[in-house]
Amino acid sequence: MIISLAERRLRFMITLTYRIETPGSIEALANKIASDQSTGTFVPVPGETEELKARVAARVLAIQPLEDAERPTWPEVATGVARLKRADVDIAFPLDAIGTDLSALMTIAIGGVYSIKGMTGIRVVGMKLPEAFKDAHPGPQFGIAGSRRLTGVEGRPIIGTIVKPALGLRPHETAELTGELIESGVDFIKDDEKLMSPAYSPLKDRIAAIMPLILDREQKTGKKVMYAFGISHADPDEMMRNHDLVLRAGGNCAVVNINSIGFGGMSFLRKRSRLVLHAHRNGWDILTRHPGAGMDFKVYQQFWRLLGVDQFQINGIRVKYWEPDDSFVESFKAVSAPLFDPSDRPLPVAGSGQWGGQAPETYRRTGQTTDLLYLCGGGIVSHPGGPAAGVRAVQQAWQAAVAGIPLDEYAKDHPELAASIAKFSNGKAA
Amino acid sequence: MIISLAERRLRFMITLTYRIETPGSIEALANKIASDQSTGTFVPVPGETEELKARVAARVLAIQPLEDAERPTWPEVATGVARLKRADVDIAFPLDAIGTDLSALMTIAIGGVYSIKGMTGIRVVGMKLPEAFKDAHPGPQFGIAGSRRLTGVEGRPIIGTIVKPALGLRPHETAELTGELIESGVDFIKDDEKLMSPAYSPLKDRIAAIMPLILDREQKTGKKVMYAFGISHADPDEMMRNHDLVLRAGGNCAVVNINSIGFGGMSFLRKRSRLVLHAHRNGWDILTRHPGAGMDFKVYQQFWRLLGVDQFQINGIRVKYWEPDDSFVESFKAVSAPLFDPSDRPLPVAGSGQWGGQAPETYRRTGQTTDLLYLCGGGIVSHPGGPAAGVRAVQQAWQAAVAGIPLDEYAKDHPELAASIAKFSNGKAA
Repeated sequence: MIISLAERRLRFMITLTYRIETPGSIEALANKIASDQSTGTFVPVPGETEELKARVAARVLAIQPLEDAERPTWPEVATGVARLKRADVDIAFPLDAIGTDLSALMTIAIGGVYSIKGMTGIRVVGMKLPEAFKDAHPGPQFGIAGSRRLTGVEGRPIIGTIVKPALGLRPHETAELTGELIESGVDFIKDDEKLMSPAYSPLKDRIAAIMPLILDREQKTGKKVMYAFGISHADPDEMMRNHDLVLRAGGNCAVVNINSIGFGGMSFLRKRSRLVLHAHRNGWDILTRHPGAGMDFKVYQQFWRLLGVDQFQINGIRVKYWEPDDSFVESFKAVSAPLFDPSDRPLPVAGSGQWGGQAPETYRRTGQTTDLLYLCGGGIVSHPGGPAAGVRAVQQAWQAAVAGIPLDEYAKDHPELAASIAKFSNGKAA
Repeated sequence: MIISLAERRLRFMITLTYRIETPGSIEALANKIASDQSTGTFVPVPGETEELKARVAARVLAIQPLEDAERPTWPEVATGVARLKRADVDIAFPLDAIGTDLSALMTIAIGGVYSIKGMTGIRVVGMKLPEAFKDAHPGPQFGIAGSRRLTGVEGRPIIGTIVKPALGLRPHETAELTGELIESGVDFIKDDEKLMSPAYSPLKDRIAAIMPLILDREQKTGKKVMYAFGISHADPDEMMRNHDLVLRAGGNCAVVNINSIGFGGMSFLRKRSRLVLHAHRNGWDILTRHPGAGMDFKVYQQFWRLLGVDQFQINGIRVKYWEPDDSFVESFKAVSAPLFDPSDRPLPVAGSGQWGGQAPETYRRTGQTTDLLYLCGGGIVSHPGGPAAGVRAVQQAWQAAVAGIPLDEYAKDHPELAASIAKFSNGKAA
């Protein structure tokens, strides 16, 4: 069988796109990255032969010039430089030189490049992995289909809420609030990502206080709320013990702070997990907030999806954080696109300052899908009619969004929605 | 026993210092961080009582104003803002609210703050942990004393080199080069951090090719070269298998790419490890390269030392990377200062573009210590007289540095040093 060069590249090449900013030569810097991240060192050394280079050398495939930068991303270079050139540079690494281990990929293709001198900024804006990565990694165990099956929600977003205050409640206090939320008809409840197992609320006690309420409600109504318990721990053994506590008590979901546990923690957990893994990406912002440095979410999310995240928090429309709406929409599209197969898609989670008010725009801008978890904290808990009214208000907002009816109009005969508009349309729902 | 407020703080408080940059109010932002990272949400919620706040609320301890910023670190805000205020803000978190788990600490005290709106930059520039962290974490297993004992080097820096080219050599080729390095009298050899276990050089085969040479030389001379094999893997189980391969073959050291394996990988490994863990921090630069964002090394290194890093790469004087010398000196002082006890100090590793030429300045600026691993790649391998001459040249440079004799003078009757000055003093030793 003869395969084309393009096909060969697809199968045996890992391709990264770097957005480079430099007062020097883009070409020289592109070649330097390709060399430094594979065979190179600063002085010619014995053994750096042509054969060796053919085996492992990274190669510059394309350079796409962009507009000059107005200001350096990193203010290292002396001011007064005439031009700060920018370009998107595609560099291909032979698959065999890196392999499919994600720590090797991160080290060679991403981690190392941020230290290179002579640039005023570098951002990884694209990564194309060959099929070999599909077989080498588990991907999500539950993803969209599993999240729907376990919550019993079809044809609309899964609606979730967060127990507030974030920190400080004792287990019996959390259980009290949770009892009310369970009664509200909400599909999903989670610990704030900052709540793990502190002295005043050990995970074991929190589970013991909450799970009976969930199971009792399930017994009575057939509906089992998915509760995501904060199980993160820097020590994977401890995290697995936390996982087992949730599982043994009949729970089916856990919040994991992916950046704080790292690839090691996530990989270890996923291999052994029987819970839906709800990823919170706190800390991510420092890798992406400056547009001239770090990486795009569409690159970052590939690692965590391969590692097995089932649900992925990605902010939402008009969030309380710094992230612009366009960036959220891009993230949504990235997690919703198959890497290799539709089953490798995690459930996107829109959260932060959400209430029904963002439903129309979220629906319209994310490709008119209802495949998401729509997470409202204060937007449900602080509804003037209480949490049950809060949940109904969000459901109504999504009905309106899907039907293409303006919220104000739909609110005329949907009083819970009307009340939430009155309370939250100033943007205050956290 | 009556303890003072200051002592109480030391024992039961975690204190972070944030360097904040904002066009708005520093005070408001400081309070917002304290609130957001503990009890707070955007709307008052039932249950956020005074009692709860007393239990877990973070508090602003001090605000130290700094000079205004000239330009925003993150270019989000509209230009034309009158002032970009800056200040160092101390915030204390009750120990009980976070506990001693490092993933909780990272999530609550650091990860979350980067997402907060209304700032144009935030950098974590200080972290003081109470004694409770000492008992909760293993720290280095070998550190400075263990590294000296295993290499048999006293009274001078441990001198190391890196097998180059970084990638692409097959095991027998690596072994060939390594053989020559072992004969050279060097104390320490390492795989390039990018080399783990690719198809062309599986770790197992590399170990099988190299370790007999080391053991053979040990047999003959009594000197055992410490060889750091690249064992990193995103999957902690795989990484432990790699660890065991090294151990079973008689090896005593491993390179770990700490950011690529994460807290989970490091924690899992350290608990089970019997090897000296040599940390490479590739990827770190993106967290620190802009002075207005991310974090200082003195904060970052605390996590990894508690987790158990034995040797810590921190660049060096006149490196080939972006990092300025002052920053390296700060890093050296940070890793060399006890967190709680002198035994929790890892061995500092000065590397990148090093040869004997930087010895005097390194010695002078790091407090006249020889407690370091001095790592020269091309600086040894590319010495005109070969690696053995390269090693002697570096040893001679350190003798001169410690004796306070200028290198040029010492070179007069030390021909290897003279030859390295002739070759590398233009700055070309990678």
